[in-house]
Amino acid sequence: MLKQNNPMSLLLIAPNRDLSPLKEELLALDPNLDLDIWPAVKNKERVTFAVTWNHPKNTLKQYPNLTAVSSLGAGINHLLSDPDLSDKTTLARLITPSLKKQMGEYVLTALLSYRTHIPKYVDQKREAHWGAKSLIPKEDCTIGIMGLGEMGETTARTLVANGYKVLGWSRTAKNIDGVSSFTHDELDSFLSQTNILVCLLPLTPETESILDLELFKKLKSPSYLINVGRGQHLVEEDLIYGIDTGVLEGAWLDVFEQEPLPKNHLFWNRPSIMITPHIASVTDPKEAAEMILENYKRSLSGQELINEVDRTQGY
Amino acid sequence: MLKQNNPMSLLLIAPNRDLSPLKEELLALDPNLDLDIWPAVKNKERVTFAVTWNHPKNTLKQYPNLTAVSSLGAGINHLLSDPDLSDKTTLARLITPSLKKQMGEYVLTALLSYRTHIPKYVDQKREAHWGAKSLIPKEDCTIGIMGLGEMGETTARTLVANGYKVLGWSRTAKNIDGVSSFTHDELDSFLSQTNILVCLLPLTPETESILDLELFKKLKSPSYLINVGRGQHLVEEDLIYGIDTGVLEGAWLDVFEQEPLPKNHLFWNRPSIMITPHIASVTDPKEAAEMILENYKRSLSGQELINEVDRTQGY
Repeated sequence: MLKQNNPMSLLLIAPNRDLSPLKEELLALDPNLDLDIWPAVKNKERVTFAVTWNHPKNTLKQYPNLTAVSSLGAGINHLLSDPDLSDKTTLARLITPSLKKQMGEYVLTALLSYRTHIPKYVDQKREAHWGAKSLIPKEDCTIGIMGLGEMGETTARTLVANGYKVLGWSRTAKNIDGVSSFTHDELDSFLSQTNILVCLLPLTPETESILDLELFKKLKSPSYLINVGRGQHLVEEDLIYGIDTGVLEGAWLDVFEQEPLPKNHLFWNRPSIMITPHIASVTDPKEAAEMILENYKRSLSGQELINEVDRTQGY
Repeated sequence: MLKQNNPMSLLLIAPNRDLSPLKEELLALDPNLDLDIWPAVKNKERVTFAVTWNHPKNTLKQYPNLTAVSSLGAGINHLLSDPDLSDKTTLARLITPSLKKQMGEYVLTALLSYRTHIPKYVDQKREAHWGAKSLIPKEDCTIGIMGLGEMGETTARTLVANGYKVLGWSRTAKNIDGVSSFTHDELDSFLSQTNILVCLLPLTPETESILDLELFKKLKSPSYLINVGRGQHLVEEDLIYGIDTGVLEGAWLDVFEQEPLPKNHLFWNRPSIMITPHIASVTDPKEAAEMILENYKRSLSGQELINEVDRTQGY
């Protein structure tokens, strides 16, 4: 099928996001690329490949020749939950090298800040208060990572390189230097040896609400939660209850059930909960452009995509 | 000289510090150790070895047989500035393995928190404000470490292991994997390639007030200061002026001219200055006890001490 006879186009959809840096990088790589940014679509019939982040409902069914959709990030629940996407549409995640590195560095930042009490020193500064707090010893910081996919593995390696004892929990056993691997049935054993739980799971019906009070109670004391997965992994009221009753020391959260986190949410007022606005890992436009273009070309020739989604596993 | 005929004792002096954990560790290692904690000294003539931190003036001259004094930490300016200590008194610094590791981790914590804007997110949390800030890219974070002694070297290695470009400035050239070494005369060249300046110098007449406006102006933009040396290295009013005029992006400070930092100090109200209460690196009592006992035994037999001070160099 020659392009001249049946031209195809690439569509970017991400409401409330500035897609111009990504567009620029894509056109720098291929000046002849036929590219639309939703909602300004020249010819709906030509769209065969879409890259989306939280696209509005009923959007994708308007493109009759859509054969593949890539997420603009690592998460794909906005694609899996869309009834307009038939099983025949190929799905892909976008995981760039810097996305993985950033995640590893973010979790290390959270861990070191927790151990050193940085948020407390920031609060003390506001009151011109000088008061030393003891560093939380490394021996009390065995890290348990839930989810050893691409993000989880890079994060595990970063922590191991910095001298931490790291455990990982995943569907199948993983062989990562310095990381003790626990499989699906070994969750309780994994939790009982974990002080600091890091959630990097994909969001699937099985992992939704997995971070609940029952799970927190199985952690080794002192215990702490770092959630960089999705807000829907966490039962938010269980976290509040767990902290208020001493089950957990606190939590460092980058993702929330509702984002932006509502002004009146209880989390804002809990001193032992740290909040960052979903910034742990942000896709770099240049790297994203390279990967999108590669997947677009693969889709045109019917090849398997990079990070193609296995729908039976949900990621 | 037999101990039975001329018994000797070890003295610990550190006003306002709880020395009982150190005492316990020392006695656990050697239950027969003759040990005093100032000011409760049984027999002043028997004291041959003292371990001190900020001892009051005129204290040390009361021990006629004092032959060696160890600092309780890495800093020794409280010893070098004491006119009661003759040139014949052997001086030593106390640098334990965990002290060095802690320093490396602290500088990494400061660096990652600065890059990720953690202090700003803590402030935003107080106002229930959700607002993402861009990560400061690694390319804008070339680290320049002033002082490549034991603390500086460990810090450099920690940063290199985490993928940072690291330069070091020291009296003599150093050969540390991944670290570009600059010697005394190459300060300007070192500064011109440095974004984030980390001060880990010993405090000597030559290094006092070295961190001044003239020096800040030579740094590569965007530039930032992390001071974990001594407060006296920094001209505090030059830092304020440098930040207010855009010469520096900000600073992360653990040490101050006066500690605790006075309530009315300008630093407390500067949003881009982070303050921690001299906690970067805290001596572990168990490790300290081992090293003190070793040096005490060495001093009794006239051997060179671990980390003995070279008075001609001032460290």
